[in-house]
Amino acid sequence: MRIIGIDPGIAITGYGIIDKSANSFRPVAYGKVTTEARLDTCQRLVEVYKGLTSIFQEYKPQCAAVEELFFNKNAKTAIIVGQARGVAILAAANAGLDIYEYTPLQVKQAVVGYGRAQKKQVQAMVKLLLGLREIPRPDDVADALAVALCHGSSYKMQHILNRS
Amino acid sequence: MRIIGIDPGIAITGYGIIDKSANSFRPVAYGKVTTEARLDTCQRLVEVYKGLTSIFQEYKPQCAAVEELFFNKNAKTAIIVGQARGVAILAAANAGLDIYEYTPLQVKQAVVGYGRAQKKQVQAMVKLLLGLREIPRPDDVADALAVALCHGSSYKMQHILNRS
Repeated sequence: MRIIGIDPGIAITGYGIIDKSANSFRPVAYGKVTTEARLDTCQRLVEVYKGLTSIFQEYKPQCAAVEELFFNKNAKTAIIVGQARGVAILAAANAGLDIYEYTPLQVKQAVVGYGRAQKKQVQAMVKLLLGLREIPRPDDVADALAVALCHGSSYKMQHILNRS
Repeated sequence: MRIIGIDPGIAITGYGIIDKSANSFRPVAYGKVTTEARLDTCQRLVEVYKGLTSIFQEYKPQCAAVEELFFNKNAKTAIIVGQARGVAILAAANAGLDIYEYTPLQVKQAVVGYGRAQKKQVQAMVKLLLGLREIPRPDDVADALAVALCHGSSYKMQHILNRS
């Protein structure tokens, strides 16, 4: 099963594609879609959509995993991130992917085994589980890989549960 | 010039289409795209996108006007509305429309002539300017028509300014 994790943002949208087979994960590709600050919001949203769509076409993941957002910051930031998130979800839906959402708690529990894990612990586990030489940068890329791993682990667990 | 005003939301997206000729406005169509609460967020975003896309195809507006959002409510609401807003903007961009954003202040000034006008005053002017028998319901539809009128008025003013 090929999974793409997405961490949407108007400036940087991180993505991480992994293959899950039996009990192991293999990194396929990871990186970011960036948009220039000189563009207006509408153009930047179109760039996010186009960038993700071309990644879906190139790597053909079957499903997408996106982290749910919880903000205690200002609402203006939340609207901007929300717009990018809506566009990312729509791009995945229009490309025929199944989409799954996970809370930050679920991602931490799945990747580290501990719901209150710190960001650095999550990143270290992403590196370890995927056999990477370094922690992917920027954070958006590591976060995207983490939510992809979360879906891979959860899916596995669901599968085991369904068989029992 | 045919303008569509859009007031995006995950449950109700209001739209209002008007034709502007010389100094008058004519209502073409207005209504709402609704999504069912039983659907998950991704499905609802796809419904908003599809609903707006089919309206663009039917009425062929040349440009879209959307109100900028300013929230003092909680950030969770802002993310949800932001997602719908991103999808609405993307639908308009993908349909080849020019997109314009206006602040609530600009909408009130353009429609009522007073930046601190109340919602009811804006709605009364929407009814008057478009020669409607009643104020369109729900508020999302009246708001969509108001931002369409704002663009029509602003565009006219820009045009006059350019000619002088």
